[in-house]
Amino acid sequence: MRDCHREITRWMQSLGAQVRIDAAGNLRGIYPADRPNAPRLLIGSHLDTVPNAGAYDGVLGVVLAVTLLEELRGRRLPFGIEVVGFSEEEGVRFGAPFIGSRALVGRLDQELLDVQDARGVSVRKSMEDFGLNAAEIPQAELENDALGYLEFHIEQGPVLEKLKQPLGAVEAIAGQSRLEFTFFGRANHAGTTPMHLRHDAIACAAEWIGVVERLAQGVAGLVATVGKIEAKPGAVNVIAGEVRLTLDVRHSSDEIRTRAVKDLIHEAHVVAARRGLTVGETTLLDQKAVAMDPFLAREIERAIVKAGCKPHRMVSGAGHDAMILAEKVPAAMIFLRTPGGISHDPAESVAAEDVEKAIACGLHLLDQLAASPEFLKRMNRA
Amino acid sequence: MRDCHREITRWMQSLGAQVRIDAAGNLRGIYPADRPNAPRLLIGSHLDTVPNAGAYDGVLGVVLAVTLLEELRGRRLPFGIEVVGFSEEEGVRFGAPFIGSRALVGRLDQELLDVQDARGVSVRKSMEDFGLNAAEIPQAELENDALGYLEFHIEQGPVLEKLKQPLGAVEAIAGQSRLEFTFFGRANHAGTTPMHLRHDAIACAAEWIGVVERLAQGVAGLVATVGKIEAKPGAVNVIAGEVRLTLDVRHSSDEIRTRAVKDLIHEAHVVAARRGLTVGETTLLDQKAVAMDPFLAREIERAIVKAGCKPHRMVSGAGHDAMILAEKVPAAMIFLRTPGGISHDPAESVAAEDVEKAIACGLHLLDQLAASPEFLKRMNRA
Repeated sequence: MRDCHREITRWMQSLGAQVRIDAAGNLRGIYPADRPNAPRLLIGSHLDTVPNAGAYDGVLGVVLAVTLLEELRGRRLPFGIEVVGFSEEEGVRFGAPFIGSRALVGRLDQELLDVQDARGVSVRKSMEDFGLNAAEIPQAELENDALGYLEFHIEQGPVLEKLKQPLGAVEAIAGQSRLEFTFFGRANHAGTTPMHLRHDAIACAAEWIGVVERLAQGVAGLVATVGKIEAKPGAVNVIAGEVRLTLDVRHSSDEIRTRAVKDLIHEAHVVAARRGLTVGETTLLDQKAVAMDPFLAREIERAIVKAGCKPHRMVSGAGHDAMILAEKVPAAMIFLRTPGGISHDPAESVAAEDVEKAIACGLHLLDQLAASPEFLKRMNRA
Repeated sequence: MRDCHREITRWMQSLGAQVRIDAAGNLRGIYPADRPNAPRLLIGSHLDTVPNAGAYDGVLGVVLAVTLLEELRGRRLPFGIEVVGFSEEEGVRFGAPFIGSRALVGRLDQELLDVQDARGVSVRKSMEDFGLNAAEIPQAELENDALGYLEFHIEQGPVLEKLKQPLGAVEAIAGQSRLEFTFFGRANHAGTTPMHLRHDAIACAAEWIGVVERLAQGVAGLVATVGKIEAKPGAVNVIAGEVRLTLDVRHSSDEIRTRAVKDLIHEAHVVAARRGLTVGETTLLDQKAVAMDPFLAREIERAIVKAGCKPHRMVSGAGHDAMILAEKVPAAMIFLRTPGGISHDPAESVAAEDVEKAIACGLHLLDQLAASPEFLKRMNRA
């Protein structure tokens, strides 16, 4: 991370930006406006990634932000631009995502600072070990001069590729439910228990997984996934007595999502009861959908058209720093087509032409905002 | 095992039996016939068990055999009785079952002796550590004077309980196929991949598990079980790219079993192909069904009736030492009702009344055999 900070800092400094690392470890570089005391537009993404990752998830958005500064070739705008490289979005080490962006909206609280990694090192301790000062976290928080937040990110899904379009304007980040279900049947000998006398937890779970899939297929925009499944005792010659599995449900409408979750819980109990099993479920996460700023989304669509592409409005099924920033400032995202939808994998890629389109789109967007009466009115409010 | 041997040895010696531990660690006690040079009927089961086991699987059959000697109250029969307590039936330590009974049919070979446990100790070494001499294994083999083998064992299944019958006559030990299947899909983000663009290995496996269950339900006597399932990467927010699972199929007809396995392999490929996945399978075990001796099975049914019970012919879905002994001598089994079908569990149990019925059945059977011209003809052959 230090090497990464050093590299990007040098690059931004060469473009006339003032760079600092804030108390949450975020890299922040301010490219000044054409006038004093002007508010700022934030553009950024995250610098961290996952183990066995690709090269683009997160960092491409930071590189694109700095590239936009470079492409301005010294030109100043009526607002400043603050490039942000967030420190910890994925949540790999502490199981808690968005640590960097939470600091900007005042949500990097004591509770989060006390969260420990697998070796018992807390967020606070790791920050101190890196040379940061937790007492200065309030100074990382956004002030009233932030106009909005813009994030370029690879889609990490197959939709734009299927549509043969390089760029998409994100209109919302889907709400997300995560649950864990445990089906309790009866472990029995696979050879001595006739089919009609079984209470097979794997067979029961399998039937319900089919219900999950069919329900999601029947509702536009809904995704539902059983991604983790464990059976006990888990032996070739023993009927499973217990299956524990997870359910992940997402939709841009919280009503549709919570309705689906309720139906799937109901169906789990119906399927289990018919087979003489029981089932218990725990909600691990119930996160509301977050709308992106409609004005910025419209402007992004216009900029996509100016860059020579067709506009496409889409919902992000994944969480992003923009979701956190949206709590405090108008936020917007631009997705780049992701070949094969492959992400979090060394095979993750992005086409050079698509990156060129993203740069063109970003420059058009900056020009549009600089010339927009509505955006300039926001400036006055800010 | 030494304490167990000592206990049963003392008991058998007090009944006039000559007891030894053979080179494979089997406890063998000979109760003499009423005449010299008479052949022997073997009665036994195994003394080993599984971790976290109950108190009856295996050892009840040995205790019942000695109890029959006791109940003869000094009376001698025209044939001797050899009680056998097999040393290693379950295969827990070396992953190789039936080590004790294999010695009696001449199949405790070099290959098996070289099999190692998890710490790298071979069967041969563990035998030597126990004080046995592998060079004497041929002397453990049955000679021509063995008339047959009889085994009492808990059913380890729910069939007799459902029928409200204490005892059952086993007519065959089911053949068994064990396979491992791997479904290869594509791991993808659970939030960003629409339902129609997924290649979800868990959803695919779940559909096929339903096919397995329905196929087995539609064929009398067939059991098919998916007992082990593992998904990769196995995260709540990632569509599974790979599922590995096991299939266990059993039936008393080898034709029906192998047909079912063939159909299920075919269906796995059909389901996978329709979903854009692939599947590979490996056969881990293909073990033929073993018929019990029809004469002995009929005599057991008669003895069950004399003991005041209704006879019930059944197929053993589990493997037993009788399956190995059947390679060399007429073999037969008597099952005892197992409450709840629960076995390989501390809750494993058996009703005292059912054990009394088993003793009564065993004594009637010995009397029947002693008075049977057909059995005495066998003696002459032996």
